[in-house]
Amino acid sequence: MIAVQLEAGQVRVQECAVPERQPGYALIRMKHAGICSTDLQLQRGYYGFAGTPGHEFTGVVEDCDDLQWRGAAVCGEINLACRHCAWCTRGLGRHCPNRTVLGIVRHPGAFAEYLTLPECNLRRIPAGVDEEIAVFTEPLAAACEILDQIKIPPGAEVAVLGDGKLGLLAAQVLQLHGARVRLFGRHTRKMRLLEPLGVESEICSERNFPVAAFPYVVEATGSPAGLERAVAMTEPRGTLIMKSTVHDKVSIDTAPVIVHELTLVGSRCGRFEPALKLLTAKRLILAPLVEDRLELREAAKAFARAAEKGVLKVMLQG
Amino acid sequence: MIAVQLEAGQVRVQECAVPERQPGYALIRMKHAGICSTDLQLQRGYYGFAGTPGHEFTGVVEDCDDLQWRGAAVCGEINLACRHCAWCTRGLGRHCPNRTVLGIVRHPGAFAEYLTLPECNLRRIPAGVDEEIAVFTEPLAAACEILDQIKIPPGAEVAVLGDGKLGLLAAQVLQLHGARVRLFGRHTRKMRLLEPLGVESEICSERNFPVAAFPYVVEATGSPAGLERAVAMTEPRGTLIMKSTVHDKVSIDTAPVIVHELTLVGSRCGRFEPALKLLTAKRLILAPLVEDRLELREAAKAFARAAEKGVLKVMLQG
Repeated sequence: MIAVQLEAGQVRVQECAVPERQPGYALIRMKHAGICSTDLQLQRGYYGFAGTPGHEFTGVVEDCDDLQWRGAAVCGEINLACRHCAWCTRGLGRHCPNRTVLGIVRHPGAFAEYLTLPECNLRRIPAGVDEEIAVFTEPLAAACEILDQIKIPPGAEVAVLGDGKLGLLAAQVLQLHGARVRLFGRHTRKMRLLEPLGVESEICSERNFPVAAFPYVVEATGSPAGLERAVAMTEPRGTLIMKSTVHDKVSIDTAPVIVHELTLVGSRCGRFEPALKLLTAKRLILAPLVEDRLELREAAKAFARAAEKGVLKVMLQG
Repeated sequence: MIAVQLEAGQVRVQECAVPERQPGYALIRMKHAGICSTDLQLQRGYYGFAGTPGHEFTGVVEDCDDLQWRGAAVCGEINLACRHCAWCTRGLGRHCPNRTVLGIVRHPGAFAEYLTLPECNLRRIPAGVDEEIAVFTEPLAAACEILDQIKIPPGAEVAVLGDGKLGLLAAQVLQLHGARVRLFGRHTRKMRLLEPLGVESEICSERNFPVAAFPYVVEATGSPAGLERAVAMTEPRGTLIMKSTVHDKVSIDTAPVIVHELTLVGSRCGRFEPALKLLTAKRLILAPLVEDRLELREAAKAFARAAEKGVLKVMLQG
């Protein structure tokens, strides 16, 4: 089979062996896979990554132990937890200290013709949901995680900072939840995509943003400067959800966090169930987020396209 | 009367007029006042402060409108709220955007023979509580604020970072609450003071501290490096209470906050009621925290003493 290999900043597509399926695992033929900002960071060598990336995917199960999965169209939870530790027993395998992570930590990813995952990580793509659109399950679960972590009352004003992929998903999830979302970003073109859902948006410059104005703020800019701005926008006793992972150290003035007694909540992956429910309901605006689709063998080109300024989702096709 | 004046780093004691008491305000003769780290920061010119500092005090009411207060031994809530805005109506005058703050923001402080405060800010010193020890009401309220903001279950392991005044108070409040406190600091002498309460302590170096080990961490080091260490010590899904206000920008790696989905809670002033209850119960170790007491006219010397490395509370006497 062919698989993407990242090494020293280079994206190569190489011939390699189909991965061996361990007991309890499924062998999946990848059909669609999405390039995420994390993949671009892995390419830049952050976290010392070398290997096959890719964690947003859908595919077909070709081999497995539990026959219910054979031939099923699936997506998959990306954290491969040990299932025995204290975290796993609490149902928080996403924080298992022994975990590997599909295409990120010591488990070859989905930018390949075939991948493996434990059968318990598989989720069936709901009937009627497009298999390419279902690639959004994983980032959508990350957006839904916000609502698993904090209670946002209906009608609450929420500022979402950042009009990248995650910002656009978070804004939609929160708006459909019943919050009044104001999206702050740099690209009118992208922010307008969410107008049909009633998401108000605003161009946000370095100097011009509302101060101490929102009880809830989601920081999804992907930029080191985003956190300080998000802190400034949060009202006293407000909650700031931190979604951006940035490689460099972030420099912030912590005084407003303490003086205004803000709560900052780090937020990462989420459960797939709420995301799959949202996909089934078909109220989200997802198709316009797909900017390009390329064949797996064109991965180098696809990575370059995904890294262009302002480009949303680039899909690889298996 | 005489009053301390801070200006351009200098601590001067000057003759000046007794402050005029506005309607609804009490005129208080200061008896004891504590020098806090904030006062030392104000001296260094942070926040552009010039004037009379001092916000930890006890005194006697000499003049007032409501006769119940005349002659009373009091301490006082330091935030002078407008009592009309949305924050005040929610009972959160400590976040009133129109507030002044005793000895910090546009209201002359307690390092003077006389000060004024609204009568509604006064709190009677409970019978049997020493008037000098009652100076700790304000910083103790700041320590108690932690328990107003977050639930810490009995028996939970809590790391307190910092063996300064606030660290020692927070450690005691949490230990008496029923948590199992581990205090991390630099001075065995100070940390040992809390042994009678069963607070375990440990010398904490830059490189040697437990990682991802505590569900609750209180950062009270007062140092810009403290936050990153506190983040590292907090276990996945854990809560970090930020107590240190530092002047400089703080540089942190936000990745563990997001990957471990930590909750960071900024924490400042608190209600006086729980602090006064603790003082009445007399289980706290406070007297050994008073390292020195000087006359108000010796304020310059007292500030120098308070700024010495490892020195705990220095009291001014009215």
